[in-house]
Amino acid sequence: MSENKPLVGILMGSDNDYGVMAEAAKVLKQFGIPFEMIVSSAHRTPERTATYVSAARDNGIKVLIAGAGAAAHLAGVVAAETTLPVIAVPIDATSLQGLDALLAMVQMPAGIPVATMAIGPAGARNAGIFAAQILATDNIELATKLSNFKAEMAAGVIKKSDKVQEKLAADGLI
Amino acid sequence: MSENKPLVGILMGSDNDYGVMAEAAKVLKQFGIPFEMIVSSAHRTPERTATYVSAARDNGIKVLIAGAGAAAHLAGVVAAETTLPVIAVPIDATSLQGLDALLAMVQMPAGIPVATMAIGPAGARNAGIFAAQILATDNIELATKLSNFKAEMAAGVIKKSDKVQEKLAADGLI
Amino acid sequence: MSENKPLVGILMGSDNDYGVMAEAAKVLKQFGIPFEMIVSSAHRTPERTATYVSAARDNGIKVLIAGAGAAAHLAGVVAAETTLPVIAVPIDATSLQGLDALLAMVQMPAGIPVATMAIGPAGARNAGIFAAQILATDNIELATKLSNFKAEMAAGVIKKSDKVQEKLAADGLI
Amino acid sequence: MSENKPLVGILMGSDNDYGVMAEAAKVLKQFGIPFEMIVSSAHRTPERTATYVSAARDNGIKVLIAGAGAAAHLAGVVAAETTLPVIAVPIDATSLQGLDALLAMVQMPAGIPVATMAIGPAGARNAGIFAAQILATDNIELATKLSNFKAEMAAGVIKKSDKVQEKLAADGLI
Amino acid sequence: MSENKPLVGILMGSDNDYGVMAEAAKVLKQFGIPFEMIVSSAHRTPERTATYVSAARDNGIKVLIAGAGAAAHLAGVVAAETTLPVIAVPIDATSLQGLDALLAMVQMPAGIPVATMAIGPAGARNAGIFAAQILATDNIELATKLSNFKAEMAAGVIKKSDKVQEKLAADGLI
Amino acid sequence: MSENKPLVGILMGSDNDYGVMAEAAKVLKQFGIPFEMIVSSAHRTPERTATYVSAARDNGIKVLIAGAGAAAHLAGVVAAETTLPVIAVPIDATSLQGLDALLAMVQMPAGIPVATMAIGPAGARNAGIFAAQILATDNIELATKLSNFKAEMAAGVIKKSDKVQEKLAADGLI
Amino acid sequence: MSENKPLVGILMGSDNDYGVMAEAAKVLKQFGIPFEMIVSSAHRTPERTATYVSAARDNGIKVLIAGAGAAAHLAGVVAAETTLPVIAVPIDATSLQGLDALLAMVQMPAGIPVATMAIGPAGARNAGIFAAQILATDNIELATKLSNFKAEMAAGVIKKSDKVQEKLAADGLI
Amino acid sequence: MSENKPLVGILMGSDNDYGVMAEAAKVLKQFGIPFEMIVSSAHRTPERTATYVSAARDNGIKVLIAGAGAAAHLAGVVAAETTLPVIAVPIDATSLQGLDALLAMVQMPAGIPVATMAIGPAGARNAGIFAAQILATDNIELATKLSNFKAEMAAGVIKKSDKVQEKLAADGLI
Repeated sequence: MSENKPLVGILMGSDNDYGVMAEAAKVLKQFGIPFEMIVSSAHRTPERTATYVSAARDNGIKVLIAGAGAAAHLAGVVAAETTLPVIAVPIDATSLQGLDALLAMVQMPAGIPVATMAIGPAGARNAGIFAAQILATDNIELATKLSNFKAEMAAGVIKKSDKVQEKLAADGLI
Repeated sequence: MSENKPLVGILMGSDNDYGVMAEAAKVLKQFGIPFEMIVSSAHRTPERTATYVSAARDNGIKVLIAGAGAAAHLAGVVAAETTLPVIAVPIDATSLQGLDALLAMVQMPAGIPVATMAIGPAGARNAGIFAAQILATDNIELATKLSNFKAEMAAGVIKKSDKVQEKLAADGLI
Repeated sequence: MSENKPLVGILMGSDNDYGVMAEAAKVLKQFGIPFEMIVSSAHRTPERTATYVSAARDNGIKVLIAGAGAAAHLAGVVAAETTLPVIAVPIDATSLQGLDALLAMVQMPAGIPVATMAIGPAGARNAGIFAAQILATDNIELATKLSNFKAEMAAGVIKKSDKVQEKLAADGLI
Repeated sequence: MSENKPLVGILMGSDNDYGVMAEAAKVLKQFGIPFEMIVSSAHRTPERTATYVSAARDNGIKVLIAGAGAAAHLAGVVAAETTLPVIAVPIDATSLQGLDALLAMVQMPAGIPVATMAIGPAGARNAGIFAAQILATDNIELATKLSNFKAEMAAGVIKKSDKVQEKLAADGLI
Repeated sequence: MSENKPLVGILMGSDNDYGVMAEAAKVLKQFGIPFEMIVSSAHRTPERTATYVSAARDNGIKVLIAGAGAAAHLAGVVAAETTLPVIAVPIDATSLQGLDALLAMVQMPAGIPVATMAIGPAGARNAGIFAAQILATDNIELATKLSNFKAEMAAGVIKKSDKVQEKLAADGLI
Repeated sequence: MSENKPLVGILMGSDNDYGVMAEAAKVLKQFGIPFEMIVSSAHRTPERTATYVSAARDNGIKVLIAGAGAAAHLAGVVAAETTLPVIAVPIDATSLQGLDALLAMVQMPAGIPVATMAIGPAGARNAGIFAAQILATDNIELATKLSNFKAEMAAGVIKKSDKVQEKLAADGLI
Repeated sequence: MSENKPLVGILMGSDNDYGVMAEAAKVLKQFGIPFEMIVSSAHRTPERTATYVSAARDNGIKVLIAGAGAAAHLAGVVAAETTLPVIAVPIDATSLQGLDALLAMVQMPAGIPVATMAIGPAGARNAGIFAAQILATDNIELATKLSNFKAEMAAGVIKKSDKVQEKLAADGLI
Repeated sequence: MSENKPLVGILMGSDNDYGVMAEAAKVLKQFGIPFEMIVSSAHRTPERTATYVSAARDNGIKVLIAGAGAAAHLAGVVAAETTLPVIAVPIDATSLQGLDALLAMVQMPAGIPVATMAIGPAGARNAGIFAAQILATDNIELATKLSNFKAEMAAGVIKKSDKVQEKLAADGLI
């Protein structure tokens, strides 16, 4: 994975979604996985989306991530054009707070799967990790990175637990 | 409107949806509006859908109706390919009872409208009536039919009210 | 459409809804479609509403748009008095964040259709576009404007995609 | 209250609602309160509804009950035409199981109250009781009947508790 | 109604609810209806609540209003102790934004009705109006006040409509 | 715990709830924990409920279980009258399928806790187990029974896994 | 309970949850019940969680409290490893405002109970009180403290009611 | 992939879930992907689950699928023990119809991704397809099978469309 050719393609429906979807990009960068990120809409640029996605496998892309809000059709429309795994990130973009995007993504009918993550930044971050997990199924080096990442998270919990003891003391509760 | 060339195109994601979407067809037939009805999926046959829809205006179609369940992307995908009015019918096809299809249809982002009706057969029937209302904006004859239809519904209410008096009497309540 | 006689009538339940419903007005103005906008309530001024709506077709109105929040009856009450197409915009006006208005509008019983858009400003904007689409079913000039509008939206996506590349670079992600 | 002139007017949107709304009628009959019951729709017969309701007070009606399902506008439309107390019964008539009717009734905007009961037959029964409670605010005889009714319900609970002991014994649990 | 003896008793579960429930008080004062307002909890002071409510009719109270949030049991607990009409106001007091209070109030089982209003201040205001409507069933003077109130609301709509024309002009939309 | 004096009191709002609440009774019997079960309603017999509950601790009761549906106030009303732990079982008794009972139970305001279990029979069964867990905090014998119960459940999973292998073979999938 | 050995163990998935869970700690401190509070995650440190919980009973812990947000598995994972009573506090940590955490906690399958409290700080406070109620089933001293606590809450209601009278006067409503 | 060593491990919480999860098995068999399927519970057999999952990568497993209903913790608990991709299938097993399982699965916090599919059999089928898509990222033969599968689905749509024409004719609608 030292080459620069993107292995993961991240699509989002609008540049408003950048703040959320950048979480996926940060994780991929951290794991050293080359990616590209484009704005392409299921509704405003259906052809652009179809063209990008149907060429993705031949272009070396192995995983696609699609983030969208409201009636979030992007992941389903992407999945319609490829046999690559598609990860969906529902975005909280309306007064229904992401429930609309979640249901519009996760309830895909039989035949065209879309792997849905949590609503918002946590979901985008997990989309990046999940893409890494897919790439690591046959990549020992990346699998080791993921194990280390998991170990660091566990270590972080211990530190957080120590911090809680300090807060309890500060609040006079212990 | 004596010609046979379809003015309304009805799309549905699966032939399972026929029972619901036939309600739209019945209304159109009742108003003497020629229509055609095809199965085409947003996810399984994206190209077929795009081809049909992008040629629709040139083929004389004036209104499109799309019915789908689950993560119901069909209406949005149809609207992406045309400037004709698109009417959406959410179908109760999962354990979430149509709420998923409703939100996936009605919450379209700004720029690509989809006119959403109620979940299920009532919505399909209303999709047919609404298509007729669109066609009637410049068609006096059809507008008159719609007025008569409205008057018959009103008359039906009176008859139903009479039936309720009979039921009350039968139940010994009056 | 060079005359000034309104083709679209926009009703809202309260002047509090102006901020949202102005989105519909802006689109209509952009397309050069004459409209009028009034406050009239289903509950506070039922007669005013009925009088306005039942005269609408004779006054040259071709499409009605109704925006309301909470138990949003306005669109249904409008649809009861006319055979013109009625577009509904649910407004987020209570702690239930528009879900109440959405269900109160979209779940119309068979016989009286109401074409429901998304909750809030996106829905109001789409109501304006959808009204234009109805008027364009027999109007080549307006249909061309809608096509151009669609093309501009597509072009906008490309620009947004470029902006995302800049953000990625600024964040050190590419 | 020995006269036959109705004190309570029960409206429903469709004769399909009779099964539910008869629960209100049964209670009123049990309390000896004269009532009338008609089918009148907010959407199909708006004028009939307005005419009936706006004359109700002069006709001796003291309380109105409105039952409806789906986008249940009937109670709100009734309340728009009168200053009499209006009781609403949401009916489970769609795949959303009455949640649509409930929100369409209970979320009335400030100025036009509607007193909403539970979804379905329990709500209809309570509408009848609540109408009796309104009439009993200045009627000692009816208030006494309501007190007795309450005492009988309490006595019924004791009997039900005895029945549970029998069931426990039958099931070998005590 | 010139006397000072309260005709309406308003209960709330906490003084945090005062801001919302004051809306009911304002309306009652406007109509010249004497009321009293106390804090009493279904859970913290069950006896105080039962004592107040069971004596209410004898104390001249004709209508009770109960406002509460979260698992809002107050109205049901009040209704258990009286045959007076009880009006419920669900309050948005948790992260579920009043949906919990609404369902805990409106879904009362058959036998013990509670008349539920909208969530929040609009509901509290309507509770006051509805109490007036109950008192006006046999009070011509109050019924007239209610009619005038309704007429003023209608007049207010016209003024709001004029304001919208000014806004449209200011925004360059007409 | 060889004596017959009840340690657990189970209350339900109606004998209709027996089928669900018997699940709690069965578990308690299985663990040899004496219990009693009565019908008592928050709304129909508030006094009976208060009398039973406020005497419970003195009568040797250590845990109370309350099952109810719809606007399920019973557990909260019980908790208002005692400092004993109260376990709540929401019952699916309306068209809202137990969501109303769940929210009416679990969202108790600060000060009066109610320990809510899952909706329906699974929740009733868990209420029985949880009562046993409370009694076992200082009872080694009962704690051992609970450990054995847990071990049997684990063993049951292995047997179920074997059954799945048989089904896979029967279906020709392995 | 004068010793310092913890009787209650409070777990939370992240130190972000401290603000909410401190409410449980405050109540326990107020009742003089020794407790400990650690961060341990169902997903990031499953082993740490299992080790802590499975040793809890032997370490003298009598009640466990688990607070978590999002897909809140912590309480269920804790309950899987012990026969001690486990109290769950759902935390509002996502755009779904705690509904996700609530359902992920309360809907435990038969066999492994978890006692769920309200979403957020009110639930955490009640978790502390409920833990005290469990400990008080066989502890007269603690039971008396709980009775006094209840009496103080009741007294607080009277004071709040007095404050409301002042507010009413200040607002010119009485 | 001619060997028999399982590449996919399917876990379910109970043998009741077999009917749903067999859909995943059928798809895997159709694609010639070896799999194994076991019952293991997050709550009843946490150790068995942890042991199986933590050894999975070393045993040659590349993808894990977890199906569960109610408070569905299984997928999250599985993901806690591995860096392999975990696919989640929410099952409709309670009165909340799978919404509980969906939220308990999809809303995973940042750091531990779970790829959630639709509720029920459609989701199980898609889990199988998605597992194949993961395995096909580096397997041309399997990628070709997936392309053919997609083409067959598309062809199926045409046949369904023909069937709809027959139905329309049979119903006298064309």
